[in-house]
Amino acid sequence: MDRDWPTFLLPYEQAVNELKIKFRALRKEFVEKGEHTPIEFVTGRVKPVASIKEKMRRRVIDPALLEEDMQDIAGVRVQCQFVEDIYDVVGLIRERSDMHIVEERDYVTNDKPSGYRSYHVVIEYPVQMAEGEKKILAEVQIRTLAMNFWATIEHSLSYKYPKAFPEEINDRLKRAAEAAFMLDKEMSAIREEIQDAQVMYNTNRGQ
Amino acid sequence: MDRDWPTFLLPYEQAVNELKIKFRALRKEFVEKGEHTPIEFVTGRVKPVASIKEKMRRRVIDPALLEEDMQDIAGVRVQCQFVEDIYDVVGLIRERSDMHIVEERDYVTNDKPSGYRSYHVVIEYPVQMAEGEKKILAEVQIRTLAMNFWATIEHSLSYKYPKAFPEEINDRLKRAAEAAFMLDKEMSAIREEIQDAQVMYNTNRGQ
Amino acid sequence: MDRDWPTFLLPYEQAVNELKIKFRALRKEFVEKGEHTPIEFVTGRVKPVASIKEKMRRRVIDPALLEEDMQDIAGVRVQCQFVEDIYDVVGLIRERSDMHIVEERDYVTNDKPSGYRSYHVVIEYPVQMAEGEKKILAEVQIRTLAMNFWATIEHSLSYKYPKAFPEEINDRLKRAAEAAFMLDKEMSAIREEIQDAQVMYNTNRGQ
Amino acid sequence: MDRDWPTFLLPYEQAVNELKIKFRALRKEFVEKGEHTPIEFVTGRVKPVASIKEKMRRRVIDPALLEEDMQDIAGVRVQCQFVEDIYDVVGLIRERSDMHIVEERDYVTNDKPSGYRSYHVVIEYPVQMAEGEKKILAEVQIRTLAMNFWATIEHSLSYKYPKAFPEEINDRLKRAAEAAFMLDKEMSAIREEIQDAQVMYNTNRGQ
Repeated sequence: MDRDWPTFLLPYEQAVNELKIKFRALRKEFVEKGEHTPIEFVTGRVKPVASIKEKMRRRVIDPALLEEDMQDIAGVRVQCQFVEDIYDVVGLIRERSDMHIVEERDYVTNDKPSGYRSYHVVIEYPVQMAEGEKKILAEVQIRTLAMNFWATIEHSLSYKYPKAFPEEINDRLKRAAEAAFMLDKEMSAIREEIQDAQVMYNTNRGQ
Repeated sequence: MDRDWPTFLLPYEQAVNELKIKFRALRKEFVEKGEHTPIEFVTGRVKPVASIKEKMRRRVIDPALLEEDMQDIAGVRVQCQFVEDIYDVVGLIRERSDMHIVEERDYVTNDKPSGYRSYHVVIEYPVQMAEGEKKILAEVQIRTLAMNFWATIEHSLSYKYPKAFPEEINDRLKRAAEAAFMLDKEMSAIREEIQDAQVMYNTNRGQ
Repeated sequence: MDRDWPTFLLPYEQAVNELKIKFRALRKEFVEKGEHTPIEFVTGRVKPVASIKEKMRRRVIDPALLEEDMQDIAGVRVQCQFVEDIYDVVGLIRERSDMHIVEERDYVTNDKPSGYRSYHVVIEYPVQMAEGEKKILAEVQIRTLAMNFWATIEHSLSYKYPKAFPEEINDRLKRAAEAAFMLDKEMSAIREEIQDAQVMYNTNRGQ
Repeated sequence: MDRDWPTFLLPYEQAVNELKIKFRALRKEFVEKGEHTPIEFVTGRVKPVASIKEKMRRRVIDPALLEEDMQDIAGVRVQCQFVEDIYDVVGLIRERSDMHIVEERDYVTNDKPSGYRSYHVVIEYPVQMAEGEKKILAEVQIRTLAMNFWATIEHSLSYKYPKAFPEEINDRLKRAAEAAFMLDKEMSAIREEIQDAQVMYNTNRGQ
């Protein structure tokens, strides 16, 4: 028998909405104070039911354990300008008392064989429902704009080649990953210059 | 010397944004389950700086005690269809673990001499800022649509007649308050009928 | 065979989004200038597919003529503070060059036997799609807050009693309609006072 | 004497809001149909008053000719996944009947000496105000994500070094521009693969 999905997903939707608001508020706070913001964009989504079911099959997840075993039903993505910002965002999450980190995976320092780079933080997040509090898991992915660009492409391709990429595609993806990595590196190199400049920019803007 | 108002107001803005999201999520939960929702509209605002200053003068509030003594810098308004819903919303707030009630004022049962009716709940609400948690006060006003209609009018008039209303205006406002009150009473009388009907309506809509 | 509803509804969704933005911009313009705004709230919705199908059956609408014969697939509702504002909003629509009025129904002056009051304007509205312009019909309902309150209730009840209301319910609804009407009348009576006051209020707020 | 800026900027704000809604609707249309969307993100802003004044001084713009001579008071930015998408977006703008192109500047084919790449389209756009129609100018900037990344950085730096960049910074910016350009080139190379894959992805997602 199938689950009542809309009801099951309600606390996840609520969590995504609250988390988006909260990370965007952090960004606003930095901008308002004229400081460099480690947060550039914040997006979020609840995993579509079709994708949840597909992942349950692929990972052989027991329906009774869905809430504990699938950590990314609620997903938030934070995009940063610089690689260094990623670690600042992780630091901000660690200090908060409204969410609790249960796992961290650093694919920035240790990129996946595919070339994927990103920092994943799984949090436990309490949501207040009409009948009381409910704790759910959510995944926060933190990446630079260049990392995100690459990951979006790779994600799309994996739908075309569900088993493995043909060698030629694989080579091109690697080169694209290198170009993205190089862009991030060049950017970090002029980072201090840029940060000084941005503070001036935001300060002037407020006048 | 003047305060840095934009920075001072940041946590209040954040609180209002989060609270709006949270009360709207409650509404969505009831609708999704096909139950009558006690919450019809949710709005919110941060008190404009000019109004804060004016109220400080009028109430002789010590600037050093502004955060404790002015409870409505962050304000959220919940509008309900029925008078009975007001008490359900208060009950929902009492049960939440993400906000703490510090004061309740029931102007529904005990309307002000002016005819004003509304239920006020002052809460303490923790906001996570870049440098850590900050607890602020916020006022939640809960009223029916008819009460809100009347209150909006009365609020506007008080700007024209800051001292006292002329007798004629006063008489008319009283009659309007009675008409609003009668509308609420008639509505309560057919409330059970309506609630049964709305559950059917929402259930059918989901098909 | 069933229609591809999501694709069919795309231009209607787009129209509703644009119209909401446009009527809210009008409101903002009045407020910004410190003038009384005839527009208090703007909401909008695309008719759910189930409701479209039900109405096609009930009104015996030929599927090939759906776009011309069902005028409220895209619906926008403008709520006003005063009865007089309704006619100002109609005037504003008549002057616009981005929409064209094809029909007007004044249920304010001539309320329906049920007690329903509202002003309906059916417009032809051009939407730019990827393959070019598409003209669709949309219905704009203009009413006071009190009229809206009553109509919402009546709409819910009609789901419970699809044929006809029991006499008792009918009597109560009539009394509620009278209370709503009286509230509107009282409000109009102090309208000029209120309008002067609101201009002062908005002007002061801008300081 | 200073201009009444809030009133002056009202039609520009309205234009930006409408244009954002309209370009996002195009994106939605492609996604809904399971086709590759040439539009990835849409953002918009009205130029802050301080920036308008600064540009008037720098470009010696006659205040009486501000509306005609400053074309980017209303600005919309469309970000694309592929360089090829940029020209598709320009094509979509050319076909619309709700805006009229008055100028095009192709800095994609002909990048500026600084390394800046982007496609600028200046449009004339009619806005319906309370007193009637008003035609304003707006600038639409169309660029890939990589172009946008680079441009954001360059824009920030220009606040630090308003006259000219030091040679070292200039060299680094050039290298960053090359890295961004390479990323775009690699992406175009696997574009067809990606587009096929994305259509499949969007189609599956709808299930």
